[in-house]
Amino acid sequence: MMRIDELETPALIIDLDILEANLERMAAYTAKHGLKLRPHTKTHKIPALGRRQLDLGAVGLTVAKVGEAEVMIKAAPQELLVAYPVFGRGKLERLMKVAAKTRVIVSLDSEAAARPLAEAARAAGVEVGVLVEMDAGLGRVGVTPGPELVALSGTVAGLTGLRWEGIAFYPGHIKRWDEGGSRAFAEMGTVLENAICELRKAGLDPRVVSGGSTPTWDHSHELAGLTEIRPGTYIFNDRNTMFSGACTLDQCAASILMTVVSTARPAQMIIDGGSKTFSSDLPAAAGYDEESPSFGHVIEAPGAVFRRMNEEHGYVDIRRAGRTFEIGERVRVIPNHICVAMNLHETVYGVRAGNVECQWRVEARGKLQ
Amino acid sequence: MMRIDELETPALIIDLDILEANLERMAAYTAKHGLKLRPHTKTHKIPALGRRQLDLGAVGLTVAKVGEAEVMIKAAPQELLVAYPVFGRGKLERLMKVAAKTRVIVSLDSEAAARPLAEAARAAGVEVGVLVEMDAGLGRVGVTPGPELVALSGTVAGLTGLRWEGIAFYPGHIKRWDEGGSRAFAEMGTVLENAICELRKAGLDPRVVSGGSTPTWDHSHELAGLTEIRPGTYIFNDRNTMFSGACTLDQCAASILMTVVSTARPAQMIIDGGSKTFSSDLPAAAGYDEESPSFGHVIEAPGAVFRRMNEEHGYVDIRRAGRTFEIGERVRVIPNHICVAMNLHETVYGVRAGNVECQWRVEARGKLQ
Repeated sequence: MMRIDELETPALIIDLDILEANLERMAAYTAKHGLKLRPHTKTHKIPALGRRQLDLGAVGLTVAKVGEAEVMIKAAPQELLVAYPVFGRGKLERLMKVAAKTRVIVSLDSEAAARPLAEAARAAGVEVGVLVEMDAGLGRVGVTPGPELVALSGTVAGLTGLRWEGIAFYPGHIKRWDEGGSRAFAEMGTVLENAICELRKAGLDPRVVSGGSTPTWDHSHELAGLTEIRPGTYIFNDRNTMFSGACTLDQCAASILMTVVSTARPAQMIIDGGSKTFSSDLPAAAGYDEESPSFGHVIEAPGAVFRRMNEEHGYVDIRRAGRTFEIGERVRVIPNHICVAMNLHETVYGVRAGNVECQWRVEARGKLQ
Repeated sequence: MMRIDELETPALIIDLDILEANLERMAAYTAKHGLKLRPHTKTHKIPALGRRQLDLGAVGLTVAKVGEAEVMIKAAPQELLVAYPVFGRGKLERLMKVAAKTRVIVSLDSEAAARPLAEAARAAGVEVGVLVEMDAGLGRVGVTPGPELVALSGTVAGLTGLRWEGIAFYPGHIKRWDEGGSRAFAEMGTVLENAICELRKAGLDPRVVSGGSTPTWDHSHELAGLTEIRPGTYIFNDRNTMFSGACTLDQCAASILMTVVSTARPAQMIIDGGSKTFSSDLPAAAGYDEESPSFGHVIEAPGAVFRRMNEEHGYVDIRRAGRTFEIGERVRVIPNHICVAMNLHETVYGVRAGNVECQWRVEARGKLQ
């Protein structure tokens, strides 16, 4: 078996024990509270990991794009949620081919998205489920809870080819539990309860009320009416999840193995990757230190600051590292945002006790359409 | 022939007329001033475009990684510069296979990088060229000009298996010509002249003095002693190149075709891609507007501000767009940084007069090692 030391760098490695614990923790939480789990696979983009999530009790999988759905069908989910409106004849035709193989649900927030989807479904002789997206406070997509949500839900329910399943929302505006997060979460709970109440008054009883995200995962049961959650990042966790308070550093399963390639400048080492290895995502607001924003956590030197990056160069300030590094030495860096980092790698490695036990191709990487 | 309108989105499209003009402008400039051109292919990662650069007179191609070298050999360059030190037995062995096919040069800044490279070359029975990297002011990699540069150059020249070719530097600290850029450039010229003078005094006459970057391209001839430049971005240009003053908006060849997928929130439209389509690179300092940093230029609405992104959502503020957009409409967005955006796409499309004339696979995408 190959040792980690034999991998070429940069290499994205997954600690298999932490991965398994992360998967089991979420499965146990949802089971305990009677919530369904529909993990978002945009984080890992690997069918084998989607299959593992299903084996642990997930009711289905979530994807962002038709191209991801075409890959994730390999995990044989009993249901596949495309959490994104689908536009364009070519994409709709491809989606119907997926829908011929498994139950497909699409989330959308406009009649302009619903009508062509219904037409495509009728033409293909399939029925597609729909979750109407509501804005729970993020201000990204989603109709306003209340009359707009009721109206669009009613329209969808009336379209042949579609099956109105309920509603979806994404609580992406709640980043950190302290600093007002708990208040915002409670407010969102009230909005959600009212929204469901108004739907029921209009004769629309949602089978699915889909929410959840990794930063708020362990509070999901506090939302009355919620039936399921769609967290993605929890499978690996990352530095930003840690800043949100939703995991500890020890629960971060993914890191990137790097080589020190230059120490030519004083108090600095250069590692062999930057924005094409980690992505240029800064730390989330909660972890942003204006004096020294860092692009990742260097496991071998927690005091080091990964202060800057170019495409293939990471600048690590080692003044507070408490040690020096030699050219050719290796370090492991936990990225700020694992979802975008995974998307940059073709292959990732599963490791345990210093050994590389398996490798996975990131099969849905680059499936933008 | 397919029309642009028939492409699914997001799709990275290259205007072929602008591309050709960009290529010819740089070829003409370097020819006029007797400079050699060794384009950095990290920007496009496509062998066919590398071949076009060679056909227009480039003396060779530049890559950042061994994995890129293995792909770019398909362009049949007479010389391939790996502008990055190579560490690790596996990578060195792979590099020697490339060196068996064409002349390979590596730039490096330490004896720790030079010695294993020399050993690998001797073991493979090839000779590898070396450019010693000097720090011209960026503070990234590179030894200090003067005694350090002379010493490392002498060491390399003395190692069997290596051929000391000269020096390399990257003027990445000069971002904008006004605001002090011209002064910094002139200062760098003095540093370079002195560095070359000291090398000659030590009996080391560089065949190659390699510098240049897209932001400073048209001033390269002002640097006495420079023999070649290695610009990358010039092939497409991007929003940050425009901010540097090195191109106009009309000279940006690459844009990303996007679909408006939601207008649910007032004064905002959501387009179907974010950090997994554009990268999360902010505008460079010169173009950074603290009030409204933008992740790209929306061609159809220059007043719009691409103010925020998630992985698959682009938030475009259209308050100053002077028009509204319908769901399903398409827009083209010029990214801040094309090198990282290209790296996220598997296929890109060459367009002219509304037609898709060709498509290229981004063959060196994801070759991190």
